[in-house]
Order: sequence, then structure tokens, then C-alpha cells
Amino acid sequence: MRMYDIIKKKRDGGELSTGEIDFFIRGVTDGSIPDYQITALLMAIYYRGMTVRETCDLTFAVRDSGEKLDFSAIDGIRVDKHSTGGVGDKTSLVVAPIVASFGVKVAKMSGRGLGHTGGTVDKLEAIDGFRTTLSEEEFIAQVNRIGLAIVGQSRQFAPADKKLYALRDVTATVDSMPLIAASIMGKKLAADDDCIVLDVKTGSGSFMKTVEESRELARLMVDIGKNAGKKMVALITNMDRPLGNAIGNSLEVIEAVETLKGRGPEDLTEVCLTLAGHMLSLAGKGTPEECERLAARSIADGSALGKLAQAVEAQGGNAALIEGGAKFAEAKYSRAVKSEKSGYIVRTDAEAYGLASLALGAGRNTAEDTIDFAAGILLKKKTGDRVEKGEEIATLFTNRDEAFASASQILTAATEIGSEPPVRGPLVYETVQ
Amino acid sequence: MRMYDIIKKKRDGGELSTGEIDFFIRGVTDGSIPDYQITALLMAIYYRGMTVRETCDLTFAVRDSGEKLDFSAIDGIRVDKHSTGGVGDKTSLVVAPIVASFGVKVAKMSGRGLGHTGGTVDKLEAIDGFRTTLSEEEFIAQVNRIGLAIVGQSRQFAPADKKLYALRDVTATVDSMPLIAASIMGKKLAADDDCIVLDVKTGSGSFMKTVEESRELARLMVDIGKNAGKKMVALITNMDRPLGNAIGNSLEVIEAVETLKGRGPEDLTEVCLTLAGHMLSLAGKGTPEECERLAARSIADGSALGKLAQAVEAQGGNAALIEGGAKFAEAKYSRAVKSEKSGYIVRTDAEAYGLASLALGAGRNTAEDTIDFAAGILLKKKTGDRVEKGEEIATLFTNRDEAFASASQILTAATEIGSEPPVRGPLVYETVQ
Repeated sequence: MRMYDIIKKKRDGGELSTGEIDFFIRGVTDGSIPDYQITALLMAIYYRGMTVRETCDLTFAVRDSGEKLDFSAIDGIRVDKHSTGGVGDKTSLVVAPIVASFGVKVAKMSGRGLGHTGGTVDKLEAIDGFRTTLSEEEFIAQVNRIGLAIVGQSRQFAPADKKLYALRDVTATVDSMPLIAASIMGKKLAADDDCIVLDVKTGSGSFMKTVEESRELARLMVDIGKNAGKKMVALITNMDRPLGNAIGNSLEVIEAVETLKGRGPEDLTEVCLTLAGHMLSLAGKGTPEECERLAARSIADGSALGKLAQAVEAQGGNAALIEGGAKFAEAKYSRAVKSEKSGYIVRTDAEAYGLASLALGAGRNTAEDTIDFAAGILLKKKTGDRVEKGEEIATLFTNRDEAFASASQILTAATEIGSEPPVRGPLVYETVQ
Repeated sequence: MRMYDIIKKKRDGGELSTGEIDFFIRGVTDGSIPDYQITALLMAIYYRGMTVRETCDLTFAVRDSGEKLDFSAIDGIRVDKHSTGGVGDKTSLVVAPIVASFGVKVAKMSGRGLGHTGGTVDKLEAIDGFRTTLSEEEFIAQVNRIGLAIVGQSRQFAPADKKLYALRDVTATVDSMPLIAASIMGKKLAADDDCIVLDVKTGSGSFMKTVEESRELARLMVDIGKNAGKKMVALITNMDRPLGNAIGNSLEVIEAVETLKGRGPEDLTEVCLTLAGHMLSLAGKGTPEECERLAARSIADGSALGKLAQAVEAQGGNAALIEGGAKFAEAKYSRAVKSEKSGYIVRTDAEAYGLASLALGAGRNTAEDTIDFAAGILLKKKTGDRVEKGEEIATLFTNRDEAFASASQILTAATEIGSEPPVRGPLVYETVQ
């Protein structure tokens, strides 16, 4: 088999065989295929696309390029949730304990943030003492014992994806549906869950800018997961505006805890209950509607909050930060951003809000940057709200005083104020299953 | 400027600016752009194409990536001919002395053969003592003195093309009109001619398989040349069957000499007179038709043959091989290939004939191979000829006895015999100017 022939076949619109795709991914992984042939094929895939069959094969080859987890030692049904990434998206911190509080197992591996999006692992590390690295034995034992563990992704998963993504990133071949789906699902399927709920974020703050694109990606990923024998559902949710009011690591943990106490922002609470409902439903706890009511109950009776505290304690974190009695370290500086005119907020550009938070120190420009856990933004007004000139739109937090100027500037430019209240898109656009 | 943005622009069908194309070719030449970005752009160009303006810019950037010749020290009009490459194409050996015999200067740099196609420089090296490397001073002095010099291409010309071609060759991005045109013309324009006649070969033995493709390439190259201030004409000529009857280096020199003596095969003579007519016409010697008659006269009166002998002698070669009195070394072995049935030859696959000649030792599989100058094929029958079972189709020559089997097999398979005489395409399809 020759890489040249594979490139030419795809260039001419042909469907690659399972053997050809395996050959490609093996060559990517072991370095036997030079980068210049890899990127030529990626560009051909960008133009020619891939069938669902090819995309499944690509995903499975990516999954099989490195280590895989074996969760057979975990008793009970394992459910995971995966978000394509957004701004202010702390849903994992809320839904994982809700689901685990019903005895459904959540053995969660999460990512770190990069650029304008945050990562669950970073948020958890804002909790004093929390260990995001556990041995496989510790991890499985904890899941069996309390039903919930959340750790960072090991470097050994899907190394082919790491290589491919690095090349796509510098050759304008990121925006390809089959390549995106194979990248996300190749990593996701390296874990050993029974059910996966995908949260496909849509809008300015996410990778998919339109509902149509999101629907296509959701459909593809659900099909791939089903082909791999998983129970799958995807929700297409709104990321035109940040989710909840907090952006930044400890600020988001605080908001997640407030949500588990029943005092969270309406939008965040609604999305979390919908996600948790679908996770519980896939695990066999009833219809999504019934399960959503179960989820609400676990918030009302405090069992979900208790589960999070239990997991935090098990992983060495200060549980008093969750259950009360302790407070997160606050940022040295805070400053209000005020509205320059009166009217209605017609648009809050989530991506720009993420970049403003990054400027304050809450995120990473490159994988090597360190994070200021206390930095971030608390929104006082969001899309649809009435605002008067001079009224506070948001409070910025940082330990670097000099960061305020650019962050306020980004934030002000990202907040469009008009004279009429806007029509807001729904929080959850649709369900793909 | 970032290569990423250039790739993305072309990916989305944008027109690259002159500055962007210059940046790209500078980066290819100095190695600052990694191969994986180069091939991603090449694949995007494969799909999106380039405007004539972009293709001109690409060509000029390729031309300017290395050394260029300065022919201002040559007195008179300089005319060159360039063929896109075929099988049995020894026209340069015939037309260059014809044109030079009228005082028009031919300062010719030719290539070597690779794969199924031959190269003029290899053919000249079949002439005992012939030096295909001259200093620039020697070269210019010879052109001024006798009107004709033919040397090999120095390695310093258009290094960007060398790099690009090597990458295109392994990423299925060779077949792109703007990339082909920029490659050919980028090298051609590094020489300093006033007029260029392009011979775009069409058919199985050449790069362009259809007249439509050839027309498009011819149009593009003529436009590029005109944009560079050259007088340009392109002829689209037939390469469905080998040109003339000889394939292989010394066999082709002998056939070229026979043609200059007025005893050449009809097809070769016709194509040479047409090419020489256009070269003389661009140099201001009259209409193409008038100049074709002049060319025929220079054969009839021996002045063209004398000019070739003069050039061979000037470059250290044994002129008696041209004018008579000496003979080329013959191959140790020769064998007839006979027809397996009676009928008409309806197809002679020129490319396969080239590969058979390569198998006999007349060509190179890789740039490092050495050539057996005496090896090759003499055709006894060609497309359109009647042949009886057992009658000789061709004679094979080689110094490696063991090469006959595969060469005869290739040749027999490449010669289709039918019951009706075929309709033969014209030798010269059309003129593009």
C-alpha cells in the first residue's frame, strides 16, 4: 500500500477502504508517513469529505492508535458527557454529581482549556488540594466506591489525533466535519463508557457557528458512537452568549456549587437539568422528562451537592469549599465594566468574553501557560437585559492590574447595545439521537 | 504574512496577491515554510486553480528563485524551442541547426530523460566526446561564433521548482494546470531568449492526454511568456505514437542526422519543419509558411546538417558521426519483435514504447541511473500500417541480453492490432499564439 495512492484516491473523490485508513493512521502514529503527505491528504479530505463508514473507520483507527481504558472493573452503567467546548461551560461540575447521586457511574476524564475556552480539569484544580491525576486503580476504586471521579486526560490517548490536530491547525484543515468528528470521538471512545451524551455548542463562542453545522456534526458523532456500540444522544445547545454568569476557574466552581444548591443562574440550571436528564435516561432511569425531574430533585434534596463534596474530598480537595465553611482565594483586583449607553443588550459575543477572561489570566494562550484561578469575569447583564448608561455590565477579576485595560476594551466591544430587546435563541436547539 | 492565511485564502477559493505568492516561493526556496504547509497549499491549488495573473506571479517567483542567464552578450535574436516531453522526440537535434543555419541564435539548454521520456542532453552525450557542460563564457562565445550551442541545465535554475516538483510528485498534485505551467515556464524563463516555440505533446506518450488539456496548458504558457515580454507560439502535436521510428539515444541521433539529410521519417520531418518554421517566423524571417519552406531548403542544401556538425565539433564531439565517416557503437544484442497476428496496427502506446526502451537500458528509472546509449528500439511498423502474422514490428537493441523478455512483452502488449485501418490523428493539432 502506498500513501501516494491513498492521497490520489481521495483527491479524486474515492471512498477509502478500512485497510487504507488503518494504514494511514498507523503511519501517522509511528511516523512512517511524512507530514507533507499527511497534510496533502487532510486537504483532500477537507474538499472531498468522507462517508460515515470512512469516518467511523478513521475514528476507530484514531482510538486504537494509543492506550485504551478498561472499565470492566466498574460495577454498573458508565455514563459520560462531552461538550465541544464553550465559554463559561461548567456543566460537567453540575451534571456529573447529579447523575452519580442516582448510582449511575461517572468515570470522567476531562480536558484543559486553551484559547478562549475553559477546561473542567483547570476548574477542579482551582479547588485547593484537588488531584486531577489518579492511577487507574485509584480511579476505578473511587468510581466503584462513590460513583464519581474526574481526572485529566493522560497523554497516551489517541496519539494519532494529537499529531493530526497539530498539522490541521497550521494548514487550515481544522474545519472539516469528518476530521472534527473523528478527533472528538476517537479520544472519547478510548474511554470505556456505556452511554455518552454529547453537548454540541453552537454560536459565536464555539467551534460550530450555525445550528445546521452543529446538527451535521452531532448526527455524525452519534452515528460513530452507535457504531462503536455506545448508547448515544447529542444536544445542540446555545453558545452565542456565555453559559451562566461566571467565566474563570474558581468563579465557575462557585457558580456550579450555587447551581447544585438550587441558586444557580436560570440558563445554566436549565442546560444542566436537560443534560443530566438525558444521561440518566440513557442509563435506564426513565424517559428524559422523568429523569430531568429526578435531576431537579437531587438538587433540591442536596444529594448532588453531597456527591460533589464526596468526590472532591476523595481526590484530596478541600470539601469545605463545596459544602461551605471555606472560601476561594479572591483576586487582588476587581473592576466594574460599565455600559456606555442605555438600551438592551442585543448581543454578547461569547468568544470575545472568553478572550477577555484569557486576558485577565484565567486561561492559556499556549499549553505551557499557567492559570490564575481567581481571574475571570462575573456578568451582571446578558443578552436580552435592559441596561442604563453607566450601569455595571460585568465585574472583572485579576491578579494583574495591568490586564484590565485590554479586557474591558474587548468586553465592551463584544457587548452590543440596541434600542429594542432582541429575540433570543433557545438554550437547547434540538436533540439528535 | 503567515503561510496559514495563504493556505486558508486559497482553500476558500481566493486569489492570492503577488506579495503572497512571492512570500510562498521565498519560503519554499529558503526552507522557512515547512513541507507540510507547502503540500497543503499545493492540494488547495489543485482544487481551486489559479488565475492567469496568479500563475504568472508564481512562474516569475519560481524563475527568480535562483540564477538567471544574461544573453545580452549574444548578437541577434535568440530563439528557443521547448517540448513538454515525449517518446522518440529528437526534434531539438533537427530544428536547432535548421534555425541556426539562418543566422538566428539558438542558445539552448536542454534536460535529461527520466522514466519513459528521453532528454536531448542524453542524446548528445551519445556522440563520442560531446561536452554538454560549458562555462557561460564558452557557451555565449560559441553561440556568437556559430549560432548554436546546446548544454545541460545547471542545477542553480529555479530551485523552488525542484523542491515543489519533488513534493508534488509524492502528494498527487502534479496534475494541476497552473502548477505545470509555472514549473515549465519558471525554468524556461530563467534563460534569456527573445522568442519561444512550445511543443505541447498530446496523447498516451505525454503528460497531457487530450487535446483540450493541451490547449489549456498551451494557452496558459503562451500568456505567461507574453507577460514576460517574450514572443510566443505553442504547437499542439501528436504523441499517441512515438515520433519517428527510433527510440533510444544514439538511434535517435542517427535518425535526426538522416532527417537533416532529407531521408528522415515523414512524421518527424513534418513536425520538425513546422516547429522550425514557427521559430524562424518569430525571429522575423517571414510567415510560418514561408519559413517552413526556408527550413526545407536548409535541409535540401545541407546547410542545417553542416551547422549541427559545426556545433558538435565546437563542443568536442566527433563530427564524423554527423557528417559521415564514423559510426556509433552498436548494441551487443538485437532481436526482432514479431506480430502475433495479421491486421492493421490501430494503436501504438507511446508511453509503453518509452517504458520498453527504458527496460532495454536506454533511459533512467531514477536520476542516478546510467544510460546505455546504444540501447533502444527501431520501429518497423507504426499505427496505420498493415502487418502480417510473424512480420517484424520492431527491432530491439541492448547490451543486457536479459532485458529482451520484458521489453518485448511490453511492446507487444502496447501494439494493438485490429482488422480495419484506424483513423490517425493529425501530427500537428493546432497552433496557439
